[in-house]
Amino acid sequence: MGSVLSYSFSYGCGALRRLAARSCIVSPVPSPELKLIAALRQAAGRPSGAKCAGEVLVSIGDDCALLQGGRGNDLLVTTDLTLEGTHFRREWHSASLVGHRSLARGLSDIAAMGGDPTAAFLSLGLPAKIEQRWVSGFLAGFLRLAKRYRVQLAGGDTAESKSGVIANVMVVGRVSHGQAVLRSGARPGDRIYVSGVLGGATAELMSLRAGKRAATGRGSLAEPRLKLGRRLRGLTSSMIDLSDGLSTDLRHICQESGAGAVIIGENVPVAKTATFDLALNGGEDYELLFTAPPHQGIPREVAGVKVTLIGEVIASHEIWLERAGRRRRLDPRGWEHFRKGNR
Amino acid sequence: MGSVLSYSFSYGCGALRRLAARSCIVSPVPSPELKLIAALRQAAGRPSGAKCAGEVLVSIGDDCALLQGGRGNDLLVTTDLTLEGTHFRREWHSASLVGHRSLARGLSDIAAMGGDPTAAFLSLGLPAKIEQRWVSGFLAGFLRLAKRYRVQLAGGDTAESKSGVIANVMVVGRVSHGQAVLRSGARPGDRIYVSGVLGGATAELMSLRAGKRAATGRGSLAEPRLKLGRRLRGLTSSMIDLSDGLSTDLRHICQESGAGAVIIGENVPVAKTATFDLALNGGEDYELLFTAPPHQGIPREVAGVKVTLIGEVIASHEIWLERAGRRRRLDPRGWEHFRKGNR
Repeated sequence: MGSVLSYSFSYGCGALRRLAARSCIVSPVPSPELKLIAALRQAAGRPSGAKCAGEVLVSIGDDCALLQGGRGNDLLVTTDLTLEGTHFRREWHSASLVGHRSLARGLSDIAAMGGDPTAAFLSLGLPAKIEQRWVSGFLAGFLRLAKRYRVQLAGGDTAESKSGVIANVMVVGRVSHGQAVLRSGARPGDRIYVSGVLGGATAELMSLRAGKRAATGRGSLAEPRLKLGRRLRGLTSSMIDLSDGLSTDLRHICQESGAGAVIIGENVPVAKTATFDLALNGGEDYELLFTAPPHQGIPREVAGVKVTLIGEVIASHEIWLERAGRRRRLDPRGWEHFRKGNR
Repeated sequence: MGSVLSYSFSYGCGALRRLAARSCIVSPVPSPELKLIAALRQAAGRPSGAKCAGEVLVSIGDDCALLQGGRGNDLLVTTDLTLEGTHFRREWHSASLVGHRSLARGLSDIAAMGGDPTAAFLSLGLPAKIEQRWVSGFLAGFLRLAKRYRVQLAGGDTAESKSGVIANVMVVGRVSHGQAVLRSGARPGDRIYVSGVLGGATAELMSLRAGKRAATGRGSLAEPRLKLGRRLRGLTSSMIDLSDGLSTDLRHICQESGAGAVIIGENVPVAKTATFDLALNGGEDYELLFTAPPHQGIPREVAGVKVTLIGEVIASHEIWLERAGRRRRLDPRGWEHFRKGNR
């Protein structure tokens, strides 16, 4: 799992909405992808006001889609495609880790909206000759995580895959009506915070690529920050999970909020195994990046997780990095940073 | 798409629940699949009673999972994986047909519960070198159908696929609370009905395999029977959509209802292009198979679609076919019928 692999392809690894947002800022993006994205954004359109259960309140443009629920709740829906060769390699990643990660990605999206997961759906494409042991390991990792967060496996689909393993995981969750934390709520003057430490997942993947043993870090079995997300709901003005890398995911918040940002480089919490560059641009850390008004007291630890103040939202469309007394533009390199030489 | 392709693989094409049910009856099923299915059924368990929006009411064992909604509605969720080489071939099937079918499969599941679709989520894995024209065609077919039924494309995911096209489509729908038509409601004495004509989709696929031009039939662009499903809600005791073939899907109803059935062969509506055998065992017709109490008047045409009385539910666990004065066991051959010689 991890960005060294997943960022090296034309269509990227991120959710549709991320890819859509990204298309505006990363250049050059090959023409076919731009067309695909443009077609999808245009076609999806904007929800026209939900009145009945299951109708769409918020669609492409956030960590989850928000649907009309009931009994005081809105519904959250997110879907993530995990592909062998693109998101993991069987020779690098254990089966249970792949199972864990394929569900953790969705749970992390629910966390980023401040919600609680309720149900998961697993579509599994398997090569005909895959070892039963691998399949059992995958399911063990998936189901262990589901059980921990009381997520019911409610259905799915199976098919034989002509090539590698394919796992599409859809997670449904709930959040009190109107309480979902969107990406679009950041306002100039808001403080920018991040949970945990960054860059560890990518550092681990680079070790694996180099033939070394996996570094021990959050990268191996990232826990979705569900408890943290719930605790932050009501305190924050915007939130996103760090799947594509700080430099890219911060841009998503800024774009959806129509704002800019200044990040203080010295404040960015770098994982012991990582470099500053990986903390900025590495993906798959599954920490939470969020903003809160200046008057809102945010403790240095929330739900047992370290929270660090790393910058401020500003009234422009620029994103700046201040470090060692110098200010430079912070480009979204989470996607294309590892693009070359990794195939 | 098409049973000739999709039934020829170890994991089959059906939804998880179908595969799970099937494992009890089709023999020999290779051991790994049995283990996978057993693990999933056991792990999924039974819902423990939903109280909040998004919690699971009915999980594996029906066309859709049923989740707690609100405002007088329950939510329906279904997910279908469509794989190149397994469910379609680019040289046989047009891009727009593949897009149409990948969504139609989910809409058909919603129809079989008597529900209304509200939102769809598309996870798309594409080869790096795929033609933009193909992608545009796929989306055109998908979005045309979505628009026709007012289904909002609410999100998704994209990734590069190392081999063929991968499309996972999840559809959310709603149905009035407690009104979803399940597979489990058939009772001895109930009449068995089917909509439309059967076998056409498989006949068409066989023509394509033989290098002939596609037969014109419902197989090419099957319309999900949404209007029919809604109209039948309240009249029927059980319902399923015909994706795996009559002989297999009837067994799902019988198994979930704890009953048996007698089918009158002469009454089975065979498509002009198909044989009786294909009508019994061919898949992907996306018609509705349902049961209703004997006192319930079911017109011969509902919502503009022909409806045919084909048999009766009986108080045993056997399924019989009566034809030309003889009675024989109707084995579920939808899955393995085309298994050999199609790779």
